Amino acid sequence: MSLRSTVDFLLYQWLDAESLNERPRFADHSRETFDAVLDTCERIAREKYAPFNRLVDTQEPRFDGDQVILPQATHDAQKAYAESGMLSAAQDFEHGGMQLPYTIEAAANAFFAMASVSIGSGMLSTGNANLLMVHGTPLQKEVFAKNEFCGRFSGTMCLSEPQAGSSLSDVATRAMPDGEDYAQDPLGARYRLRGNKMWISAGDHELTENIIHLVLAKIPGPDGQLPTGTRGISLFIVPKKLVNEAGVLTGERNDVALAGLNHKLGWRGTVNTLLNFGEGKYPVRSTGGGLDGKGAGAVGYLVGQPGEGLRCMFHMMNEARIGVGIAATMLGLAGYEAALDYAKTRPQGRPAGPAGKDATQPQVPIIEHADVKRMLLAQKSYCEGALALELYCARLVDEQHSGTPEAADEARLLLEVLTPIAKSWPSEWCLEANSLAIQVHGGYGYTRDFPVEQYWRDNRLNMIHEGTHGIQAMDLLGRKVLMESGRGLALLAGRIQATAAQAQQVPELAAHAAALTAAWQQVTDATRAAWATGQPGDALANAVPYLQAFGHTVLAWIWLDVALSAQRQDATQSIAANVGRTRATAYFYHYELPKIGAWLQVVANRDLTCADMPEDAF
Amino acid sequence: MSLRSTVDFLLYQWLDAESLNERPRFADHSRETFDAVLDTCERIAREKYAPFNRLVDTQEPRFDGDQVILPQATHDAQKAYAESGMLSAAQDFEHGGMQLPYTIEAAANAFFAMASVSIGSGMLSTGNANLLMVHGTPLQKEVFAKNEFCGRFSGTMCLSEPQAGSSLSDVATRAMPDGEDYAQDPLGARYRLRGNKMWISAGDHELTENIIHLVLAKIPGPDGQLPTGTRGISLFIVPKKLVNEAGVLTGERNDVALAGLNHKLGWRGTVNTLLNFGEGKYPVRSTGGGLDGKGAGAVGYLVGQPGEGLRCMFHMMNEARIGVGIAATMLGLAGYEAALDYAKTRPQGRPAGPAGKDATQPQVPIIEHADVKRMLLAQKSYCEGALALELYCARLVDEQHSGTPEAADEARLLLEVLTPIAKSWPSEWCLEANSLAIQVHGGYGYTRDFPVEQYWRDNRLNMIHEGTHGIQAMDLLGRKVLMESGRGLALLAGRIQATAAQAQQVPELAAHAAALTAAWQQVTDATRAAWATGQPGDALANAVPYLQAFGHTVLAWIWLDVALSAQRQDATQSIAANVGRTRATAYFYHYELPKIGAWLQVVANRDLTCADMPEDAF
Repeated sequence: MSLRSTVDFLLYQWLDAESLNERPRFADHSRETFDAVLDTCERIAREKYAPFNRLVDTQEPRFDGDQVILPQATHDAQKAYAESGMLSAAQDFEHGGMQLPYTIEAAANAFFAMASVSIGSGMLSTGNANLLMVHGTPLQKEVFAKNEFCGRFSGTMCLSEPQAGSSLSDVATRAMPDGEDYAQDPLGARYRLRGNKMWISAGDHELTENIIHLVLAKIPGPDGQLPTGTRGISLFIVPKKLVNEAGVLTGERNDVALAGLNHKLGWRGTVNTLLNFGEGKYPVRSTGGGLDGKGAGAVGYLVGQPGEGLRCMFHMMNEARIGVGIAATMLGLAGYEAALDYAKTRPQGRPAGPAGKDATQPQVPIIEHADVKRMLLAQKSYCEGALALELYCARLVDEQHSGTPEAADEARLLLEVLTPIAKSWPSEWCLEANSLAIQVHGGYGYTRDFPVEQYWRDNRLNMIHEGTHGIQAMDLLGRKVLMESGRGLALLAGRIQATAAQAQQVPELAAHAAALTAAWQQVTDATRAAWATGQPGDALANAVPYLQAFGHTVLAWIWLDVALSAQRQDATQSIAANVGRTRATAYFYHYELPKIGAWLQVVANRDLTCADMPEDAF
Repeated sequence: MSLRSTVDFLLYQWLDAESLNERPRFADHSRETFDAVLDTCERIAREKYAPFNRLVDTQEPRFDGDQVILPQATHDAQKAYAESGMLSAAQDFEHGGMQLPYTIEAAANAFFAMASVSIGSGMLSTGNANLLMVHGTPLQKEVFAKNEFCGRFSGTMCLSEPQAGSSLSDVATRAMPDGEDYAQDPLGARYRLRGNKMWISAGDHELTENIIHLVLAKIPGPDGQLPTGTRGISLFIVPKKLVNEAGVLTGERNDVALAGLNHKLGWRGTVNTLLNFGEGKYPVRSTGGGLDGKGAGAVGYLVGQPGEGLRCMFHMMNEARIGVGIAATMLGLAGYEAALDYAKTRPQGRPAGPAGKDATQPQVPIIEHADVKRMLLAQKSYCEGALALELYCARLVDEQHSGTPEAADEARLLLEVLTPIAKSWPSEWCLEANSLAIQVHGGYGYTRDFPVEQYWRDNRLNMIHEGTHGIQAMDLLGRKVLMESGRGLALLAGRIQATAAQAQQVPELAAHAAALTAAWQQVTDATRAAWATGQPGDALANAVPYLQAFGHTVLAWIWLDVALSAQRQDATQSIAANVGRTRATAYFYHYELPKIGAWLQVVANRDLTCADMPEDAF
């Protein structure tokens, strides 16, 4: 099936996205306006992204000593994306936005991720600007966010530091008030920042007039010491080039210096940087009588209250993590599409059994071999299932923002529980799908003449950035399943049971319904057993196997719900497509869901084989 | 533990390799001579291979229109390898060989695979020349094999063709008798070959004076048609440059032309080619009144009898597949070593639980985190287990060649059953180990500043070449478990039961012994159920999940046997190392072996969800 028909089915038939138009915020929209957005994005992705995916892989960003050089194709793609209006898709009409449901925005952005995941860096600017629209002052919104929405500026998120990758409490970037009048700057309380930030995507380039860094840093206490822990973290706007209150560049460079480009395994179209803030490469004249004369740091404007930086940043976390999940999913689907096409056209070998022994018969397309079908169906099941999960979560984001108070609260809590899965599951299993896509291609898949090896390399990032697999697992088992006395888990249980109850009425799905109910029982039992001693060391020793089992169970639920929807066939739909959905569901229940037993066993036993391993025995 | 101490333990403590010296063929050897070979190879690998592993990845082979250019480092490594004598390690003393057991040869070669898998192409020359020593004429041995052993010539294996990758029965390269006197050529019956060969490693380069291609081709019947099927395949020596009976180059180029270099995901140090045979680029003057005047084909000399080409080629198959298994294993171990080193030295975060909340405490090395330990122990368990399996199989090769008739026959049959596992299991799970090594490194693992991403790319080849995963699976379930009325399976069962019986006596291992016995029962039940209808289409629909379950069960057995050996601690051994082995065994039994249930379920049910999937429903 084409991606578009799958997206249409999931959005309209399964998630009833059209009903969002009944809500005041989306009342001006209709199926037609949604489709127009999807059409536009599909077209731009096809014309401006897909043809250049290999090019951006081979022409990596480079620094000529002054500027970071990116291929012309990236400039063109960036321009087309900005012109589509997608940067401000979610914003109010009055701010020039499209006031689009997040569900549609996420689906539309998926086309770019599939066409070339590493050309697109719009997600960061959008996230950056959306954050400022919530936490910034009116002038910060005007000067920074709105210029990002129109594509004049772009944005970054600067969290990690070389000595503090995933451990944000160890952030050591220091922000000092910039002169006596620091609090009176119209752009926000003015500080001088010094520190190093690592893994900053889109951290330096010439795609836009300016780059707006959102930087986590700490303000020293009266004793001159940085506060410990994450509560001492504040958030700052640090533009690459200084601007005035009208958003016009003053002509002065801020003290943000490129310290290095990261050369990566994949995702090479996106420039990824190490940035030095306030190290004196571009010293800024003290505007308000800075604390010391020479290069006193990079100028930054406080966003929100001091010490609330992480809270502001994490406001956007669910959407960022869904964004990573979608990227992983779309890479998986890109590989599946390539493998399916190859399998249908490549002749090789003959069927198993006596008929295949006759070498005078012509060879058959490899899609006729059972194991090739298995590899294709696995890919379909992983990737279309993952897409359904991501769109389901996107729909919850809309529910959280525009639903009734009760529905919004439920959506919020469900998202807390599901987001670690939405981030981690596709990053693991759609990567596996990419490996299967290589395998379907045989030796050709191992060459750079076919696209699948690049998808596999690109996808390997997704288990690492935006919170590693291990961090998602600790978040799920250490926090999310416990929060509000387990109410999130109970809510999810309710939805799973509702799906199972419906599926039990459908002969073709009844066995799956029983398997899902049993699997969920195993998950809840294991959750309880993991925490039976109340010791985090016991419970979390096997957090990743727990995450894997939880993820597989969630996907089994999603597939069963999709299969129910496919059963409600109407005349507009392809019968073959619904056979495919039912078959992908059966694949998941027969081949995948049984894997949870092995993962949950160590969780339930609080197995410490790994956690207790003496270091010298490795 | 260092690789060397692991190798020493497995060779001497576990496999009792020293006892091979009691056999006449190896009587001149001793632990000292074995160690000298290991020392030499370890040193050359450290000095001539490891430092250049990244260099050969970035300086890919290129064709300047005349010659294929490889980095100087590759020339130096090739020279050092040839000088070590390893090319003829297995050959008789009288032929200049070392008359070394294959077990020691395989272990010694492992150091090169770990240091730089893609620099080393010695395996192909050795395999080529070993084949000629068995199937060639005395003059073929003298002219071709011996010049390969000394490193003057190198060798290739030319099987695949563009239209016939894994399907050898579709080989279309045509060999015509070269003139009336074709049968009288002293170098072997002389033919002219025409056809295209794909995926030829080391197919063109200037590392050696000449390249000896071993080429599969078909001799047309009286009707001018090529025989169908694999029985019509013959084997030919096709030198790149023609030689006389003294092995001296005649100065004439044979008609073997480079048609293209493959640009690969990894393994980039090895040149991989598409070769055209006899297409007239380098026409060869007819030596014996050829069939037509101009470029009648590439000159080739028949090896063995017409139609017996595959039989000759497959003679070396077990060793070639063990070689691939070792390559996959050593890439896994290289990643494990890098990840372990990183985890011990990289500070990040704090322990789980209340103690870890105190951000005033310094960060801890990441090896202290339970999930990092889990990822490290998984790597250790996969890779050291795989190494044990490969050396076990190598030991069977020696048994087959130098054991008593009964032992030799058992070894042969066990090898038939175990070889698909030796090839496939490390290629899947040591690749997974490489992925975990990246994950341990976090973002750094995704950069090309660390070696782990290259190991992962290099290792992805091993599931493809030398028989894909799918082909290994069909070989195992479709042929090997059935052959000689299941006697191979019964032999393996006996060995597994013997290990379990011993382990049952050891309190720490008794539970594993019970788990192994149960797992083996599941495997045999599933084997029977798969074939219950007698239909290959039913049985083989899930051959790959069967291969996976079979492999995991074999590895569980191998680990239990290794753990038994570790229990027989003597004073010369590191206690920590044996704790590590016991722990890696526990990891395998707790975290891995339970996975077989999910794989075997579809086998036992003869599940046709994938095999029956309608093509239009994908």
